[in-house]
Amino acid sequence: MNPFKVHILGCGSARPTPRHCLSAQIVNYNNCLYAIDCGEGMQAQLARHHLMTGKLDRIFISHLHGDHVLGLPGLLSTMALSERTSPIHIYSPGGLESVMRPFIEFFVPAPSFDIIFHPFSTTQGATIFSNNTIEVQTVPLQHRVPCCGFIFREKQPLPHILRDMIDFYGIPNYAIKSIKEGADWVMPDGQVVPHARLTKPAEKARSYAYLSDTAYDPALAQAVEGVDLMYHEATYANDMLASASERGHSTTGQAAATARDAHARQLIIGHYSSRYDKDALEAMLLSECRAVFPNTVLANEGLTFDV
Amino acid sequence: MNPFKVHILGCGSARPTPRHCLSAQIVNYNNCLYAIDCGEGMQAQLARHHLMTGKLDRIFISHLHGDHVLGLPGLLSTMALSERTSPIHIYSPGGLESVMRPFIEFFVPAPSFDIIFHPFSTTQGATIFSNNTIEVQTVPLQHRVPCCGFIFREKQPLPHILRDMIDFYGIPNYAIKSIKEGADWVMPDGQVVPHARLTKPAEKARSYAYLSDTAYDPALAQAVEGVDLMYHEATYANDMLASASERGHSTTGQAAATARDAHARQLIIGHYSSRYDKDALEAMLLSECRAVFPNTVLANEGLTFDV
Repeated sequence: MNPFKVHILGCGSARPTPRHCLSAQIVNYNNCLYAIDCGEGMQAQLARHHLMTGKLDRIFISHLHGDHVLGLPGLLSTMALSERTSPIHIYSPGGLESVMRPFIEFFVPAPSFDIIFHPFSTTQGATIFSNNTIEVQTVPLQHRVPCCGFIFREKQPLPHILRDMIDFYGIPNYAIKSIKEGADWVMPDGQVVPHARLTKPAEKARSYAYLSDTAYDPALAQAVEGVDLMYHEATYANDMLASASERGHSTTGQAAATARDAHARQLIIGHYSSRYDKDALEAMLLSECRAVFPNTVLANEGLTFDV
Repeated sequence: MNPFKVHILGCGSARPTPRHCLSAQIVNYNNCLYAIDCGEGMQAQLARHHLMTGKLDRIFISHLHGDHVLGLPGLLSTMALSERTSPIHIYSPGGLESVMRPFIEFFVPAPSFDIIFHPFSTTQGATIFSNNTIEVQTVPLQHRVPCCGFIFREKQPLPHILRDMIDFYGIPNYAIKSIKEGADWVMPDGQVVPHARLTKPAEKARSYAYLSDTAYDPALAQAVEGVDLMYHEATYANDMLASASERGHSTTGQAAATARDAHARQLIIGHYSSRYDKDALEAMLLSECRAVFPNTVLANEGLTFDV
């Protein structure tokens, strides 16, 4: 299986605290890095955790609040200092380019690489990036400004060839690719060896959902049904339901309900309000989630999760 | 004496490293905070070191390179979340407001406080801020873009009243203020008691010079003659004289020569190139400085110096 990991680089909410940085993650799929959100401090966290910006080509921004965006100018500046040449692609709700480009042009004049903005709709989900091995889909969220979460879906790997059977039937190498892709094999005498006898199914394709920032929406679970790993904001504890709703955020219980109803394998919570900036209070948040969805863990800077 | 301290919050150069943040300092004079430079991460460093942004009213930006400026939007955003009401004053070379204001207005819409930009000349030194106790002067530096250092000068404190002498001459309380300010005292019989007999001189006024980023300029020492504490960039070791000159930076030996020629009490070096991001290499930088100016120390995040 290709490596498919999520690095938590920032899991605080609107303002940094002594414990937490602003929203920033890296998805590492087979040694290609994808950034999700880019709060101030992203480039410092990349350096601290020895993640190479040279392997980062695509940045996915959930919404245009500063705590998810303001790390972009510094990151692009450092990429320019590194004399990067490959383009960087930035996916976000509309409006980012018009405010960001003049700012970047002032602080990163004449960069050695192209910066390409890709605005996406926040009213309906879509596949916004796809390559041979992975695709990224948007998931509309309910926040105070247009906002989407993201699902990183591994494409279904091809089945494994059963080498013994290939040898047994004397199948030549040139035919392997088409067999992996689903073809049967026809022997010189016309006998058909079915594809299923020559292969075993690959592992199930994996998926990771990033859901932040959002108010609770019972329909969200269906949009992310069956993801393996889910990051969901839990800005507030259960007793702050009214604040969560008013601010377009979720409580612990709501985050856990979404993970439960989506049949996720594991839930990571984060985007903690600064009021919970203590071990004991974060343990309380975790406990509230586990009451609804036992396989929940707390995000923390520097943690890495296998999808 | 009023407290007069310098907090080092960032002493790396163009890009953050696992050891160092981008340029950012706080001068604390009598519990009023003044920021010098505002690299990305400033607000996180303020939180980490428990420095209250509510006590920070003035920010002094040496020049408009991103590593000295890009912490501003996030800092102002957090000030808005804190429902600050007092204005924030930003002093910098010209051009900052036109690029920064539209960006801030997007990410910090309708802040509860005024943001006031004060552009200053970078071709000749001037006093750009003054209150009852302190003043801030610019010192033109030699960099790739217009750039100034800053001298924070305590105003000469008034002399101390000699309480015994006041009592001896039966001087009423209402006269104390004018005596502190230099008046003699005239007795009812016409006898003049000279000011000097009623007071003892206050401590010498203290001063702090921040000199970054700059190429070596022998004339600089005269501009900062006699400062108590000096922060001077030492981006490069002595063996990189050509790079320093070409990039508008200083070597260790050049920083130390400026401190020596200015008769500073103590030199703090910083703005280290990321190539020196190891204990042993920073120790080498320190050693090169001490060969010229023994009372040199290495800047590091979290260190506080008394001026």
